[in-house]
Amino acid sequence: MRTLTNKLPEHIGKTVTIEGWLHKKRLLGGLTFINLRDRSGLAQILIKDKDEVEKLRGLQIGTVLLIKGTVTKDERAPGGVEVHDPVLEVIVPVTDEPPIEIDKPLNHKPDNLDTLFEYRVIGLRNVLETNIFKVQAGIKEAARQYFHAEGFTEFNSPKLLPEATEGGSEVFKLDYFGKEATLAQSAQFYKQIMVGVFERAYEINPTYRAELSATTRHMTEFIHIDAEIGFVDFDGLLDIVDGLLHGITESVQKNYESELKSLRAEPVKLASKLPRISLEEVHELYTKETGTKTLGEKDLRPDEERFISEYSKEKFGSEAIFIVDWPATEMKFYHKKSEKNPEFAERADLIFRGVEIATISMREHRYKELLDQLKTIAKGDPEADGFKYYLQAFKYGLPPHGGFGMGLERLTQKIVGLNNVKEATLFPRDINRLTP
Amino acid sequence: MRTLTNKLPEHIGKTVTIEGWLHKKRLLGGLTFINLRDRSGLAQILIKDKDEVEKLRGLQIGTVLLIKGTVTKDERAPGGVEVHDPVLEVIVPVTDEPPIEIDKPLNHKPDNLDTLFEYRVIGLRNVLETNIFKVQAGIKEAARQYFHAEGFTEFNSPKLLPEATEGGSEVFKLDYFGKEATLAQSAQFYKQIMVGVFERAYEINPTYRAELSATTRHMTEFIHIDAEIGFVDFDGLLDIVDGLLHGITESVQKNYESELKSLRAEPVKLASKLPRISLEEVHELYTKETGTKTLGEKDLRPDEERFISEYSKEKFGSEAIFIVDWPATEMKFYHKKSEKNPEFAERADLIFRGVEIATISMREHRYKELLDQLKTIAKGDPEADGFKYYLQAFKYGLPPHGGFGMGLERLTQKIVGLNNVKEATLFPRDINRLTP
Repeated sequence: MRTLTNKLPEHIGKTVTIEGWLHKKRLLGGLTFINLRDRSGLAQILIKDKDEVEKLRGLQIGTVLLIKGTVTKDERAPGGVEVHDPVLEVIVPVTDEPPIEIDKPLNHKPDNLDTLFEYRVIGLRNVLETNIFKVQAGIKEAARQYFHAEGFTEFNSPKLLPEATEGGSEVFKLDYFGKEATLAQSAQFYKQIMVGVFERAYEINPTYRAELSATTRHMTEFIHIDAEIGFVDFDGLLDIVDGLLHGITESVQKNYESELKSLRAEPVKLASKLPRISLEEVHELYTKETGTKTLGEKDLRPDEERFISEYSKEKFGSEAIFIVDWPATEMKFYHKKSEKNPEFAERADLIFRGVEIATISMREHRYKELLDQLKTIAKGDPEADGFKYYLQAFKYGLPPHGGFGMGLERLTQKIVGLNNVKEATLFPRDINRLTP
Repeated sequence: MRTLTNKLPEHIGKTVTIEGWLHKKRLLGGLTFINLRDRSGLAQILIKDKDEVEKLRGLQIGTVLLIKGTVTKDERAPGGVEVHDPVLEVIVPVTDEPPIEIDKPLNHKPDNLDTLFEYRVIGLRNVLETNIFKVQAGIKEAARQYFHAEGFTEFNSPKLLPEATEGGSEVFKLDYFGKEATLAQSAQFYKQIMVGVFERAYEINPTYRAELSATTRHMTEFIHIDAEIGFVDFDGLLDIVDGLLHGITESVQKNYESELKSLRAEPVKLASKLPRISLEEVHELYTKETGTKTLGEKDLRPDEERFISEYSKEKFGSEAIFIVDWPATEMKFYHKKSEKNPEFAERADLIFRGVEIATISMREHRYKELLDQLKTIAKGDPEADGFKYYLQAFKYGLPPHGGFGMGLERLTQKIVGLNNVKEATLFPRDINRLTP
């Protein structure tokens, strides 16, 4: 009967069997100490018997072991216990030294990322790396809990689509039995269709963008938290995104406290209601502060995203802030204009710790108005396969609705405190990297 | 303040506001009755006032309404309540008659499926169709709960891969910035890699197969419940799959009782421990029963899958059964031979209600043996991008492990009781269909 290493404190004085990977080995004052890693954590084992020490001769980190020994209280050891008088059984010997050390923090400097990803398969066994992705799993779980509590239903939309619908250049094309298919750049149309079915729908699913540039913010494949809500107005929509970010950060900080601590992640500070500020106001503040004139610009510069985050943290005690009042001239065809201020689209970006983690908007839900916008803004053909089914949803009745997409990896990156979104991705994909 | 229709019984005698879609309209003895659909269900509204009836003139099913009225007890109405003296506000008028009726069961006959999918966007608003996908969301949720309780961690593997690794023909290829990329046919290699990280790992994610045939069992895109477990033997692995199927069916039958009842789904009968039977035994039983000789065949015929399901139900009181002892000659390169009986692979298929819903196997975890099998069985090049990172996981230590993949749509199909896996898919994809 196997005992997990995190349960050893419950077995002090008893003989247990543990299984795992040899994670560290060192000699200290003539004694051999090893760490064994299993899914629950690490155990420290003291080996005195020369025959047992001999079993490890020539074996490297990664060797799979079964160990029988006695659990002994020891304040100096991790978890407050140590395994004594062990009898070792080598389950899988590893004789090659791993290409990357896994018992100390890995080098995450920009110029070492290629090495990090080249040896990702082994590097992920580093407890700190593992912890990043435990937190990521926790973020997904917390998001789902929030959605379920708010009456959302989960769905899966297809990623194989007939043609590019939201602008063409960044789309992957593939041969589909002699026809051309594309990979979904977003679940946009499907989640709007699902408002007609579930009213509140979400999916957490891969998304594909043929990004030509390798930046710290973009990948060709990433996980999107996609949600859409019917019978909502812009204010109510922002409240839901607000609730989601609160729900995720609070849940993760409670349930993954030790993982976040090991990663030296700063606790997230959010105002109980996230502040909202207009795009032009950001430009004004930024221009005033830096002397660089951005007044009237129709988008946020990356540097402005960082600036307004800092500003919001100091001024509102909130590391997340909504940017509202985006110019209607820049809107996508499915966005909705503000009825009160038609020069603006009902759109917001959520900036968190210096980067945009979500775009949010109300959608034009009126069939005729949508048809107009499709023709004038997207120059789209309503009869094309990519549009005609989408339009059915409106022709046969969709209520006022809005939604958002939030990047899982960016959110992970910012909660954990990493420089590059790829560090928050198990096996990142960009223009240069299709492996491992 | 909006009240959801399923909460109306809590407001008897009070005036409420409800919002939703006009779902049905009928005249009965000079009175107008309408059903309003929202995300929680249906409400029945009695309209006597001629001015209110007039507001609906020319409007069709799908029209979005806001209704203020008084909740009245009425045993004959769904939910035991009816809304009286309503005042209607038309939020979104629908003037075209929907192309498919949604207030009675849709036609699921094989020769009508094309029509069903052509009007899927609207057809899904049929409450019975919606219920199929509520159950499907419940299956995913139940699977995750089981995995979390058993110490699994969720992960996301990339679907963009450098080359086909598991047999080449059924793979989609795409242009990746001038190189060739493929879409993942399974998460196989990544989930095995993740055993080295999380020990127990799972993902529920899309999978792509360029299936040339349009059958009732296959699609080009489907959702796979993929799991992998370290430090397990074949027996323990089957126990986990057994527990998962029990967990899912029990959870769904408890939490989605009314949805399943509406779909006339038969409650699932499972033995408390799922029976296990050898492939050859199935052949013997089938040959004896039908006279068709299948003895010695290296696979199960579809008809045998149906036969053994019926047999298991009668003999063992279990609609799910494991088929074990598959010939080693047929195994994939990553499968593990039985050490006791090397003529068999440590593989099982889980047959449920007449169809294979999961393939399960122990994997060869020893680096040298795996290299041999890669060369002899898959004729693979260990230095190829598709293999070399995968092999790192073994070179640097993987414990005995095994895993399985379970098709979400097939499982939904069988729990709900549908003929074709596509009926259990929101927007199915096959060789003929890339829309909606």
